[in-house]
Amino acid sequence: MDSANKILLYDTTLRDGAQREGISLSLEDKIKIARKLDDLGIPFIEGGWPGANPRDVQFFWKLQEEPLKHSELVAFCSTRRPNGVAAQDKMLQAILAAGTRWVTIFGKSWDLHVLEGIQTTLEENLAMIRDTIEYLISQGRRVIYDAEHWFDGYKKNPVYALQTLETALKAGAEWLVFCDTNGGTLPHEISQIVQEVVTALNIIPDDPSSPKLGIHTHNDSGLAVANSLAAVVEGVRMVQGTMNGYGERCGNANLCTVIPNLQLKMGYQCLDESELIQLTQTSRLISEIVNLAPDEHAPFVGRSAFAHKGGIHVSAVAKNPFTYEHIKPEAIGNQRRIVISDQSGLSNVLSKAGHFGIDLNKNDPTCRQILERLKTLESEGYQFEAAEASFELLMREALGQRQELFELKGFRVHCDMLQSVEMSCSNAVATIKVRVDGVELLEVAEGNGPVSALDMALRKALVKFYPEIANFHLIDYKVRILDSGAGTSAKTRVLVESSNGQNHWTTVGVSPNILDASYQAVVEGIEYGLLLKEVPSLAVVQS
Amino acid sequence: MDSANKILLYDTTLRDGAQREGISLSLEDKIKIARKLDDLGIPFIEGGWPGANPRDVQFFWKLQEEPLKHSELVAFCSTRRPNGVAAQDKMLQAILAAGTRWVTIFGKSWDLHVLEGIQTTLEENLAMIRDTIEYLISQGRRVIYDAEHWFDGYKKNPVYALQTLETALKAGAEWLVFCDTNGGTLPHEISQIVQEVVTALNIIPDDPSSPKLGIHTHNDSGLAVANSLAAVVEGVRMVQGTMNGYGERCGNANLCTVIPNLQLKMGYQCLDESELIQLTQTSRLISEIVNLAPDEHAPFVGRSAFAHKGGIHVSAVAKNPFTYEHIKPEAIGNQRRIVISDQSGLSNVLSKAGHFGIDLNKNDPTCRQILERLKTLESEGYQFEAAEASFELLMREALGQRQELFELKGFRVHCDMLQSVEMSCSNAVATIKVRVDGVELLEVAEGNGPVSALDMALRKALVKFYPEIANFHLIDYKVRILDSGAGTSAKTRVLVESSNGQNHWTTVGVSPNILDASYQAVVEGIEYGLLLKEVPSLAVVQS
Repeated sequence: MDSANKILLYDTTLRDGAQREGISLSLEDKIKIARKLDDLGIPFIEGGWPGANPRDVQFFWKLQEEPLKHSELVAFCSTRRPNGVAAQDKMLQAILAAGTRWVTIFGKSWDLHVLEGIQTTLEENLAMIRDTIEYLISQGRRVIYDAEHWFDGYKKNPVYALQTLETALKAGAEWLVFCDTNGGTLPHEISQIVQEVVTALNIIPDDPSSPKLGIHTHNDSGLAVANSLAAVVEGVRMVQGTMNGYGERCGNANLCTVIPNLQLKMGYQCLDESELIQLTQTSRLISEIVNLAPDEHAPFVGRSAFAHKGGIHVSAVAKNPFTYEHIKPEAIGNQRRIVISDQSGLSNVLSKAGHFGIDLNKNDPTCRQILERLKTLESEGYQFEAAEASFELLMREALGQRQELFELKGFRVHCDMLQSVEMSCSNAVATIKVRVDGVELLEVAEGNGPVSALDMALRKALVKFYPEIANFHLIDYKVRILDSGAGTSAKTRVLVESSNGQNHWTTVGVSPNILDASYQAVVEGIEYGLLLKEVPSLAVVQS
Repeated sequence: MDSANKILLYDTTLRDGAQREGISLSLEDKIKIARKLDDLGIPFIEGGWPGANPRDVQFFWKLQEEPLKHSELVAFCSTRRPNGVAAQDKMLQAILAAGTRWVTIFGKSWDLHVLEGIQTTLEENLAMIRDTIEYLISQGRRVIYDAEHWFDGYKKNPVYALQTLETALKAGAEWLVFCDTNGGTLPHEISQIVQEVVTALNIIPDDPSSPKLGIHTHNDSGLAVANSLAAVVEGVRMVQGTMNGYGERCGNANLCTVIPNLQLKMGYQCLDESELIQLTQTSRLISEIVNLAPDEHAPFVGRSAFAHKGGIHVSAVAKNPFTYEHIKPEAIGNQRRIVISDQSGLSNVLSKAGHFGIDLNKNDPTCRQILERLKTLESEGYQFEAAEASFELLMREALGQRQELFELKGFRVHCDMLQSVEMSCSNAVATIKVRVDGVELLEVAEGNGPVSALDMALRKALVKFYPEIANFHLIDYKVRILDSGAGTSAKTRVLVESSNGQNHWTTVGVSPNILDASYQAVVEGIEYGLLLKEVPSLAVVQS
């Protein structure tokens, strides 16, 4: 800590965040998220509870092999079992094996949970806290102590609750973290209780020789962010939370909201400015990794957070942004957005054209044609925000700049689970008919499912004419059902991300037939890759 | 107001809420919402700005014909135009024509907005406030004054801001409402500024002869609820907000969060107990009417708000709900829910078994087998949180209680876009082979895509043996690519929700072949529906 107003962020997306219903992270997901948080500049990243499941064990191993650049990876674990010996507790051996410098130990603060939950004595609970922390420290670890149910426990029995903290402190914990585990505490209660603890333990915030405090809140009362801020005001210097507020029930404190409030409004230092402008992008990337639609209305980082409807707002914002914006959206990497009216639609098309290196004039009637086509396709379920390559093809087509590289006659897919029902892999065969340079060609391929067979057949046919296709590959494939209430007849939107090893680009397809939607997106992906050779454009991302 | 701790709720879902991107309310939608809010017991319902658009004019007419039962319907409008005469302002004539007893007038508090926004003098702005309110009162109306940009204005020029309030008060406004229009104010600032106004205007909260105060917050800092509560603590007695927090940008204060906090935790009186238990249902109905998916993670009213996942939690909640629940979910009409996941332990399995009506003992080795099977399947990408019917089938299978109703021999799907490439609808044909009661049967069907063809063929084959299948239908179909980085070979998870007209249930399938994954989920959906007849269970939701 270099300055008095420094806040140490502690991210628990990988543990508490993953408890959200609907989130199920693979090992690769967890590693991707950890690296993103490392890039963002989060000082502590809680990776999970090694030992509780095999994936978490592997996760810590993987990060031992290839450590994070800046962040401290933290292993999470409870105190030892009642009436046991810390050094013989298998759970703690798994923690040590995870090989992190820091460990977070959570223990009981609320007498009710000791007596009724884990059914031991109040004395034994103190011994569990003490032994566990002392043992980990004897093994060279640094310890953060999460006081579970702190506020509820303190309200019922403040004397005992304080004893648990004093025990943790004496055993060598460097941070004492107040957890509002049930999320039921109100901001004025947080302020008062933190104040009382600061007094009881003689804590001097920002004094290096004084114990350090943290806060960990849940959003069951819609107050997780407010509660975190209230605790910081009273001297807390570590804030635990998750990206996008993911977490069990109603979620944890949303770091994407906490950070800008602390840093841009309250004068605390959480991230470097250059890191803070990554916040919006990081939030959205993580929502992609966990495969949840980003919350468009999220404070600060949501797509609608700085959206203005036409009329008074727009002209006022143009004159003086602070009339209708509480912060500069650029500070956190977000942007002001004027909600589409016909006029701003045109300027969008123009600005996109410029981005693609296409010279387009506002008065050119093609400009309005493109807008109309765009609106029609979007009403059918296409979405071009994430599929700029498809949008560029659409634009070039309207301008007569879309060269016909091949003509597709159609496809057939056959998927047989009758003959191969006992095989673990099913057999799918795709046939494709294509016409290139006056030559008609029928090609067939099989795959590990119909979409993969289709993709293979298409490449096999076209590579004979365009050898560079051998370097193309699909790097991402996403499916979204648009009107899921329509059951299996629902419309499907497929996004395909392709790469040629140097660049990558995304295309879109929509159809009630998922194979047809996939086919559209795959075909445009290949066409766009071929176009790249001829007309270098900006709708690609350098890998 | 019958008691000192009474809070007057003011709902602006129909005006401020409707500004949310993606909401577009018809006249019928608005009427339905108003009647729902009336049933809930909201004292003030802001209906819109009559005159600003024809639909709002009609809305007020409709409610003149058939008035609300209890609630006061409120018309919303700005102060008169600069340099005009209130009695000749057409806008105000439209307000009077709306025929409400109460009118909310909003005016400028921030000198910057007066000078730069509407470009008039500070004096004229005061005259606009005074004239407008006096004129409406002369026409028999009661007035609520919304002080726009109150907190920003007060911070910059407190003297002028206070003059606007004093002007409104002197003109006869009964309520002065502090609006945090840009949503950028923090709770401690709200507390301080409200305190200063209370002192400056000699306000005695709950004294009938004293001016009355209100709060209207936006959620741009994620603090709209906390800010409303902070204002109430300082003596504010009207809270303006919207159902589900709908509103422009990041939304307004969410009344579904504000109400339980004020009433169940802070001791204020917002609704009768019998009304409060309607809160969850009203929240969900309104999300249906505005056609937005309910936020499952919303505080208090979300489907996940009282969902328990971790093993430890579940056993503790069973012993004493207050160990892990901050309020009784029943108080607001919500309910506790136990969730299945790979974090779950034996106690989750046991509790689910109880829920399904299955008698299972903790020491029964089957219990651990089920847990192991669950973990294996989840590591393969299955997810049972949302697919309880599949979980029940798995459990019954382990217990030898899964009767084999039919034996599937496999399927073939054929999708032809070669012959029908010009058709807007593609042709898919599915063949299915099934064995029931020793009889082997081959059946074929076509559909609007391969999954729909598969579903049709399966039903066609089985309905001959189980006629009740004719009543089954799919009501939802969701697809997720699990390892999207693997491209078109990625594993696919399909969730299918089925209904028999009375109940609905969800099943899951996973495979690298999307048709196979869909097939698994559809088959289990049918099997579960048939099982329902034999063993009534709780993994279904009454429609």
